[in-house]
Amino acid sequence: MDVARLTPAAARALFRDGLVRPTAGWCRGWTQANLIAVPRDHAFDALLFFQRNPKPCPVLGVLEPGQVNGPLLAGGDIRTDLPAYTVYEDGRQVAEVTDARDVWRADLVAFLVGCSFTFESALLEAGIRIAHLDQGRNVPMYRTARRCEPAGGLSGPLVVSMRPIPADRVADVVRITARYPAVHGAPVHVGDPAALGIRDLDAPDFGDAVRIGPDETPVFWACGVTPQAAVMESRPPLAVGHAPGHMLITDARDSDYLVL
Amino acid sequence: MDVARLTPAAARALFRDGLVRPTAGWCRGWTQANLIAVPRDHAFDALLFFQRNPKPCPVLGVLEPGQVNGPLLAGGDIRTDLPAYTVYEDGRQVAEVTDARDVWRADLVAFLVGCSFTFESALLEAGIRIAHLDQGRNVPMYRTARRCEPAGGLSGPLVVSMRPIPADRVADVVRITARYPAVHGAPVHVGDPAALGIRDLDAPDFGDAVRIGPDETPVFWACGVTPQAAVMESRPPLAVGHAPGHMLITDARDSDYLVL
Repeated sequence: MDVARLTPAAARALFRDGLVRPTAGWCRGWTQANLIAVPRDHAFDALLFFQRNPKPCPVLGVLEPGQVNGPLLAGGDIRTDLPAYTVYEDGRQVAEVTDARDVWRADLVAFLVGCSFTFESALLEAGIRIAHLDQGRNVPMYRTARRCEPAGGLSGPLVVSMRPIPADRVADVVRITARYPAVHGAPVHVGDPAALGIRDLDAPDFGDAVRIGPDETPVFWACGVTPQAAVMESRPPLAVGHAPGHMLITDARDSDYLVL
Repeated sequence: MDVARLTPAAARALFRDGLVRPTAGWCRGWTQANLIAVPRDHAFDALLFFQRNPKPCPVLGVLEPGQVNGPLLAGGDIRTDLPAYTVYEDGRQVAEVTDARDVWRADLVAFLVGCSFTFESALLEAGIRIAHLDQGRNVPMYRTARRCEPAGGLSGPLVVSMRPIPADRVADVVRITARYPAVHGAPVHVGDPAALGIRDLDAPDFGDAVRIGPDETPVFWACGVTPQAAVMESRPPLAVGHAPGHMLITDARDSDYLVL
């Protein structure tokens, strides 16, 4: 099965039927999205947090209470169509499930947040290799020492994803990814992980470590796991997120989010 | 008094002391903002409405309950620093006041929304005349037949502002204003008002009519009065907006919102 060539609807059906895989490299050209769902009482704080932190939290769509699909997942079900979900109660991860129907509540508001997997197609087309794809791993993600702008009761650190990039292609990846502001856009940091408060690139907080070549520089992008880090810190009674790296594959095309 | 050269803080102090004027042309180079404040219970619907309708409702800042100032109005007071306010109860306009302290409630959330006055400086610098400035009027604004994307209990029509532009400068105003997406950006409509459901340009729904020259085309931009039209239709128990054309003058520079 060439997962890069599947349609979003076909991929969602596979995940709905129980397949569990990180989605990097799936459905090339189609936009992937982070999920974070919180109770209606916490939805304003969440949306305001996203509005104030657009780089890690670009909102692609919002499903209001009772909605389980919408234009980004036509005919789908947000509770089943991702490969895996993380469930939080009072900020603690209490479960990872492949079907969230049992934990879903009628008052949950589901936010779909842009994902950097979206611009990986454009990087590949430019001849830039993606280490986690080459190495068959989930992308490495790290909590940083950089704080997000808080909103109401919600606060937390910036989370970043990392891709090692050859020194002579760093300028290209900046230029290419800057054209996709709705899916994290240009890197937030190029080089020294310590300046972001990351002590060990081999010990990511989410996802898998990847090997970094001698001529490669670690390049960091704002990451849509940031809302989950805020949930862990701010402890709403319930939250359901995607399992990191296991995204919603939407019916939007990457080119819908291309500027310039 | 050359109002174009005042600082934002000086202008806000004049309005706080009771001066009432439309703010077009004031504090050239400083960003102006629309105000809409709604009770906390309605704030999620409002913010989601803005997120779904970014062209008329670009959010520049949000003051949470209890906050009356912030980085956009340092040392100011959102309840007093605009020239005039419109007060709505259950969607009906019940008062226009120059000081909103008597009607303000502790649970109000104040949204500051981008205003097209911001790009007028750039148009003037390009040698494009602004009819309402030349004619000493408030900008004309119209309800249209175009519907906004609803959110929760909030729905309403798109409101537009209109500037007559000489035929040979229409392309220039599109190009220039497109560079300011956070303050409504490029026009939504150029030409025939009837196609927007506007029957009579001489009878604007807000602001003043302006004379249109024989070689001029009416050009329409999405307008930050749109949230007030949604309030009128959707009837939250209380809302406080700016009086149309009587904006908050912020401490942000127009250039902060310039892209490209």
